Amino acid sequence: MPPLSTPLTNPRSDRVKAVRALSRRSVRSRTGRFLAEGPQSVREVVRWRPETVLDLYVTAEAAARYADIVAAAQEAGLFVHEVTEPVLAAMGDTEQPQGLAAVCRVVPASLDGVLEAGPRLLVLLTNVRDPGNAGTVIRGADAAGADAVLVSESSVDVFGPKVVRSTAGSLFHLPVVTGLPAEATIERLQAHGIRVLAADGAGERLLPELDLRAPHAWVMGNEAWGLEPDVRDRCDEVVRVPIHGKAESLNLAMAATVCLYASAGALHPLGR
Amino acid sequence: MPPLSTPLTNPRSDRVKAVRALSRRSVRSRTGRFLAEGPQSVREVVRWRPETVLDLYVTAEAAARYADIVAAAQEAGLFVHEVTEPVLAAMGDTEQPQGLAAVCRVVPASLDGVLEAGPRLLVLLTNVRDPGNAGTVIRGADAAGADAVLVSESSVDVFGPKVVRSTAGSLFHLPVVTGLPAEATIERLQAHGIRVLAADGAGERLLPELDLRAPHAWVMGNEAWGLEPDVRDRCDEVVRVPIHGKAESLNLAMAATVCLYASAGALHPLGR
Repeated sequence: MPPLSTPLTNPRSDRVKAVRALSRRSVRSRTGRFLAEGPQSVREVVRWRPETVLDLYVTAEAAARYADIVAAAQEAGLFVHEVTEPVLAAMGDTEQPQGLAAVCRVVPASLDGVLEAGPRLLVLLTNVRDPGNAGTVIRGADAAGADAVLVSESSVDVFGPKVVRSTAGSLFHLPVVTGLPAEATIERLQAHGIRVLAADGAGERLLPELDLRAPHAWVMGNEAWGLEPDVRDRCDEVVRVPIHGKAESLNLAMAATVCLYASAGALHPLGR
Repeated sequence: MPPLSTPLTNPRSDRVKAVRALSRRSVRSRTGRFLAEGPQSVREVVRWRPETVLDLYVTAEAAARYADIVAAAQEAGLFVHEVTEPVLAAMGDTEQPQGLAAVCRVVPASLDGVLEAGPRLLVLLTNVRDPGNAGTVIRGADAAGADAVLVSESSVDVFGPKVVRSTAGSLFHLPVVTGLPAEATIERLQAHGIRVLAADGAGERLLPELDLRAPHAWVMGNEAWGLEPDVRDRCDEVVRVPIHGKAESLNLAMAATVCLYASAGALHPLGR
C-alpha cells in the first residue's frame, strides 16, 4: 500500500469543522454531503458507491487494522487522509468512530429511476422519526431483497449519522429516494401497477392472508401514532401483523421486517 | 379514587436510595426485586402480575394522567405512594420516567413449569448482551405467541431497566426463565420432544425450508459473534434467514422476529 499523506493533526482546523458540520441536517441539505463513520459503513460505501466518496479519513491504527478498506479505497483512486484520533473524534458524531470516516456525496435517487427498473418490492416510510428505526428498516429492506426504499419528506433524514450507522451499510446497497410527498407517491406507484399495502396494527387484513407474489409496496407510518388517515385511505389494503400473545404491538422495525420477509417468502419461495 | 398517602418529597431518603440501588444487577440479585418504569411497563405489571408489585410510586400529574393505572392498582390492593418529580427521578434509571414506577418482585419461573405446560414454541437466548436486543426479542416472542423465553446464565439480566423498558410490557405476559445453562437446557428440551433450532447466519438450512408445525425452540446467540460452537453443535438444525439483497446479515432482534413469525405462521395458519 502506498504511504498515506502527512497526518492531519489539528482538531480545530477549518477542514475538521466543515466535516463536523455535516452532523447538522441543514448543512447536509445545503452541501449535499454526509459522513459515513466506522468500518462497516466505510467498507460498504467504498465497495458499492466509491464514486460518491469525496474524502476518506483514517487513523494510523485503523489503517493497519482495516488495511483491506484502505487498499480498496486507494485502488478506487479515492483521497485517503491519515488523521490523528483527536481529529477523527472532532469530525464525527460517534463516540467510537473506530478510526474511519468518509465524507460522501448524496447521490440523488429518483422515483422515476426506481419505477423504470420494474420493481417488485418497495417500502415507503412516512413520518418515521426515529433514526434507529429508519436505519433498521432500510437494512431489513435490503436483506429481504427490496428494490428500493422510498422516504417521505416528513421523515427523518436518512443521511444523518445515526441512520447511516444503523443501516449497517445497506444505505449503499439499494436506491433510497428521499423527500417524497407521501400521497402523490402512492398514486404514482398504483399507476405503475404496484399494489400499495399499509402496515397498521388496526388493519383489517391479516398479513398471512395476502398473496404477495405480484409487485407491491409496504407503507410504514410513525413509530407512535402510525399512519396518517389520508395516507392509509389511499392504500389498496390496510394490513396487520397478527399478534398471537398478549403483546399490544410490534415496534416499527419489527413489523416492517415481518412484512418484508413475508414478501420475500412469496417472491422467493424456498428462500432462493 | 381514594386519596393517595402524603407525598414522599425527599429524594435523599433511605427509601429512595433503596429503590435507586435496584439499577445495579447485584442488588437485584440479592433482593430479588427490580424496578418497572413508565406507564407501559407499570400498566402491564399491574394488569398481568399484580401479585409481584410491592410498591407503586406516582407523581400527582401522572396520577391524573394515568388514572386507569392507579385505579387498577388500588383495586388490586397495591401500595400506591404519591411522590414528587425529584423523588421519582432519583429512584430510576430513565431520563423520562413519565411519572410512574413500580418496585416488583422477580417471580421465579422454572424450566420444569414451562415444560409441564407442553410448549409448542420457545426461545432460548444465549450470550445475548445488549439490553435493547434482549427486550425486543422478548416482545417479539410474546407477539408471535411463544410459550416462554429461556435465558442463559451468560446473558444480560432481563430485569435490568433497559431490558424491562424495551419489552414494552411483554416481560409480564409470558414466563421468562433466567440463569439457565445453555447446553443442559438444550438437552432437556430435546428429551421433551422439542426440536431445537439454532439461528445462525452461517446455517446450512434455510428458514423457509423448515416444517415448523411440531414443537420447537429457537436458540439465539450473541449479537456480534453468534452462537458458541458447543451450543450450536447440540442443536438439531442450524438455520439461516435467507438474505436476498446485499446486506451481510440481519441484527439479532430482526432475525429472531423473522424466525418467530415463521413459527407463528406454521402454528397459526392464516394468522388466527
